[in-house]
Amino acid sequence: MRVNNLQTGQSHTAGKLNYFSFSQCLSAKLLHLPRLFFNKSLFFINGMGKAITARNEDYSQWYNDLVLKSELADYSAVRGCMIIKPYGFTLWENMRDALDKMFKDSGHVNAYFPLFVPKSLFEAEEQNAEGFAKECAVVTHYRLKADPERKGKLIVDEDAKLEEELIVRPTSEAIIWNSYKNWIQSYRDLPLLINQWANVVRWEMRTRLFLRTTEFLWQEGHTAHATKEEAEFEARQMLEIYANFVENFMAVPVIKGTKTANERFAGAEDTLCIEALMQDGKALQAGTSHFLGQNFAKAFDVKFSDKNNKLDYVWATSWGVSTRLIGALIMAHSDDDGLILPPRIAPLQVVIVPIYKNAEQKEAITQKVSEMVATLKQLNIRVKYDDNDNARPGWKFAEYEMKGVPVRIAIGPKDLENNAAEVARRDTKEKKVVSLENIHMEISRLLAEIQTGMFNKAKAYLDEHITEVNTWQEFEEVLENKGGFISAHWDGTGETEEKIKDLTKATIRCIPLDAKQEDGACILTGKPSKQRVLFAKAY
Amino acid sequence: MRVNNLQTGQSHTAGKLNYFSFSQCLSAKLLHLPRLFFNKSLFFINGMGKAITARNEDYSQWYNDLVLKSELADYSAVRGCMIIKPYGFTLWENMRDALDKMFKDSGHVNAYFPLFVPKSLFEAEEQNAEGFAKECAVVTHYRLKADPERKGKLIVDEDAKLEEELIVRPTSEAIIWNSYKNWIQSYRDLPLLINQWANVVRWEMRTRLFLRTTEFLWQEGHTAHATKEEAEFEARQMLEIYANFVENFMAVPVIKGTKTANERFAGAEDTLCIEALMQDGKALQAGTSHFLGQNFAKAFDVKFSDKNNKLDYVWATSWGVSTRLIGALIMAHSDDDGLILPPRIAPLQVVIVPIYKNAEQKEAITQKVSEMVATLKQLNIRVKYDDNDNARPGWKFAEYEMKGVPVRIAIGPKDLENNAAEVARRDTKEKKVVSLENIHMEISRLLAEIQTGMFNKAKAYLDEHITEVNTWQEFEEVLENKGGFISAHWDGTGETEEKIKDLTKATIRCIPLDAKQEDGACILTGKPSKQRVLFAKAY
Repeated sequence: MRVNNLQTGQSHTAGKLNYFSFSQCLSAKLLHLPRLFFNKSLFFINGMGKAITARNEDYSQWYNDLVLKSELADYSAVRGCMIIKPYGFTLWENMRDALDKMFKDSGHVNAYFPLFVPKSLFEAEEQNAEGFAKECAVVTHYRLKADPERKGKLIVDEDAKLEEELIVRPTSEAIIWNSYKNWIQSYRDLPLLINQWANVVRWEMRTRLFLRTTEFLWQEGHTAHATKEEAEFEARQMLEIYANFVENFMAVPVIKGTKTANERFAGAEDTLCIEALMQDGKALQAGTSHFLGQNFAKAFDVKFSDKNNKLDYVWATSWGVSTRLIGALIMAHSDDDGLILPPRIAPLQVVIVPIYKNAEQKEAITQKVSEMVATLKQLNIRVKYDDNDNARPGWKFAEYEMKGVPVRIAIGPKDLENNAAEVARRDTKEKKVVSLENIHMEISRLLAEIQTGMFNKAKAYLDEHITEVNTWQEFEEVLENKGGFISAHWDGTGETEEKIKDLTKATIRCIPLDAKQEDGACILTGKPSKQRVLFAKAY
Repeated sequence: MRVNNLQTGQSHTAGKLNYFSFSQCLSAKLLHLPRLFFNKSLFFINGMGKAITARNEDYSQWYNDLVLKSELADYSAVRGCMIIKPYGFTLWENMRDALDKMFKDSGHVNAYFPLFVPKSLFEAEEQNAEGFAKECAVVTHYRLKADPERKGKLIVDEDAKLEEELIVRPTSEAIIWNSYKNWIQSYRDLPLLINQWANVVRWEMRTRLFLRTTEFLWQEGHTAHATKEEAEFEARQMLEIYANFVENFMAVPVIKGTKTANERFAGAEDTLCIEALMQDGKALQAGTSHFLGQNFAKAFDVKFSDKNNKLDYVWATSWGVSTRLIGALIMAHSDDDGLILPPRIAPLQVVIVPIYKNAEQKEAITQKVSEMVATLKQLNIRVKYDDNDNARPGWKFAEYEMKGVPVRIAIGPKDLENNAAEVARRDTKEKKVVSLENIHMEISRLLAEIQTGMFNKAKAYLDEHITEVNTWQEFEEVLENKGGFISAHWDGTGETEEKIKDLTKATIRCIPLDAKQEDGACILTGKPSKQRVLFAKAY
């Protein structure tokens, strides 16, 4: 019996039994129970209604259709909260693991801090508290009791009201810095380079799958340093790591920059960001890294003694990326037939579909494919052989296109005769016939080519959609007709920024790190400006 | 500059710079900033007060001291919630990764469901709801606002009261089965084999670090099957996987059994468990796997059509282990000098401490050790070379004993002359001099020996502490003076079980799966019994 595990891309015979063969715990009884466990958890075969709205018809609907039909996520019974389905979660695991390795390679370690923040701690850093107060889920009671009036129903037990309310963390600076106070006394305790992978809750009024959900998964790094320079270096370093990840794993090019004061993280002195561009010309903030100065150290009284026994407040950073990245990934690459996933993070990199009319043909194909699968796995390629009899090849092709599997191999009796197979790439839809001799080398090369090709395509799109404008009329025109980033002069005031936002919905996405210094006049007010900033409508 | 990363056991030169050397994002500016980042995050060097209470003096205090001083965890500002510190979290990551692989190898996939459960869903399976109602954290509001009376303070905004309260999940059957309803129509959709790693909240009145905390981390598997037999097989299979993990990775022997009706999971038809024995003679439930029958399918109306188009309710299991396992690990192995960790999950497996009086000696040792470290890493051994000048060897020895690092290698000038090193194992405290020639082979062998030795020691202790008794007097005597599991006959009624608990605080830990059928008389009531069950006081 064959068990296909899309998760790992492994196809192994009687997987469960194999498992027990190396465990010494198997009781004889277990052997006599049915072992009919095909894991359907990654594929809900509903076999119809797979078509999705076209992008140019309704971009927003296209996105929603795609997330649901590719089975990345589903709506839940909780307002604004989503379910990340197994296929989506496997994608997230691949992203998380790659990032986690980067964090650890750069000296960071993981920890875990409480979900709840007592209100008094939450209040301590006032800017931060004010910034998040309007979107806080608040725990007020710790017990339910039977409803005396409706049998089998429960009501909140008013006797179990908390003396102090607990905030479900929207971000963890407060709870973490309250601990750092106890952990940091001397310069020898610094730096602290701690990250956590966690769920956070921000009560959003308008939610979108992955892009903006009430609960989301993320990582949040919280570091403490002896000097301002070190903290600034750390914030910048993490931005580079994010950019590296998003560009080289997600194949999404980004612009690195600084946020304006208006767009800064509440409680930060400086917010660095990476901004990506979606296919509809809107920008998406893909990650932020904050230099927090001594704000949290002061709020939580975290001082250290330096080598000369002089006391000073600690310097801080925080930085995070979230499941929102999956939204960016989808919108940067996918098309009207479904997802297009970059090989480095795709849950499944290669799918092999047999084309056969009878058991004999299937048998011959399966025999040949088994060798191929074994060889591909030796190269750490995530491959699945889909020999399910319940679906036709055409259905399977559409299904794996919807799911964005980078490479599809189809192989029939004629191919076998020619010792060849048809290889199709998802991104360009190109097909070619490849000899089975050393096909693994070709697949390996092709996966790398797809990864690069996807980045290059997105990069060309981004480059085409950064438009320099020098008049307000141009600004409005480009924003309306072309979209993308608009590089324009700005007088540096929050007031002008707000006004432009009110007039056009465009915000300043960032002041690019590589912006060159040049004299100019603000696009709206005409006041003098020293460099261009990037405007865009954004998610 | 050397950066030691205890997380990965890697010691690499100028780690951050190396990172950037393969990233293409490095701006010249970064090169000019200080790179003084030693990661202190795993070691808070306070250098004193490391002694802990002895076990025979105060077992409970010993445990608390140990958790804090070995820096596994810390108390937090939130009642009953703990902080898992980097060293403890690395341990948890190793445990989680090993379990996760076992789950995936047996066909399971991960997903993520919402943190919140609307009260109306929570109520749906009445037994389950009743079981958890008394320990639920309840979200009632979604916004804070400025306190008009106290500047800079916040209060709950009464205008933002939720129409329906949200329960912070104490377990996720309700929210998950509410989705399964939409995902399951036909036998082709089954089985669903889904797991999630998540935080859960149970409002406990008396908490202990790791053992019982208001919030804890765990995994919860939730599976759906077409037949009762498959679901029973699954529940049993997961118990075997848990037993395999706890015995072979944690080196903690367990007894597999079934819970009595009184001790069953709320909503389950059968609860399987693994029970471990701590050094103080108390039992600890290390994992549970529940056969849920059709209870949740009925509560959430989850039906499927079988091959003959007949509709039936789906069969279910759920199973979980949590950070509580870390408490079991500590109490099963550790001693008055600190943690003793089994090599397979220890954050750090080998520490190398140089003994030197001057820079020249240190240089010579470091040169030799570098080779050793490289070779050990090739064997995937997690090794750290601690050449920190700020602490003396004796202090380092005590520190790594406290942290339970399985193998310590000390090497001084004399050793160098003899081309040898002193190798000490943490579990038995045995030391021996080992030639540097092929020392990696000896270390590799030793790690395996320690893993086995720790299990065997704990197994011998467990075997010695399962006592068959046939009279009530014996029962009380053994419970009082010897502790451990008491194998005794019981009349099978919840009433007697409760009475014994009231009289002695001992509970029925389980009906062992391998209990032999024999006629006997209940230890308390004298009524007839067909098999012995295991009693113990428990955590």
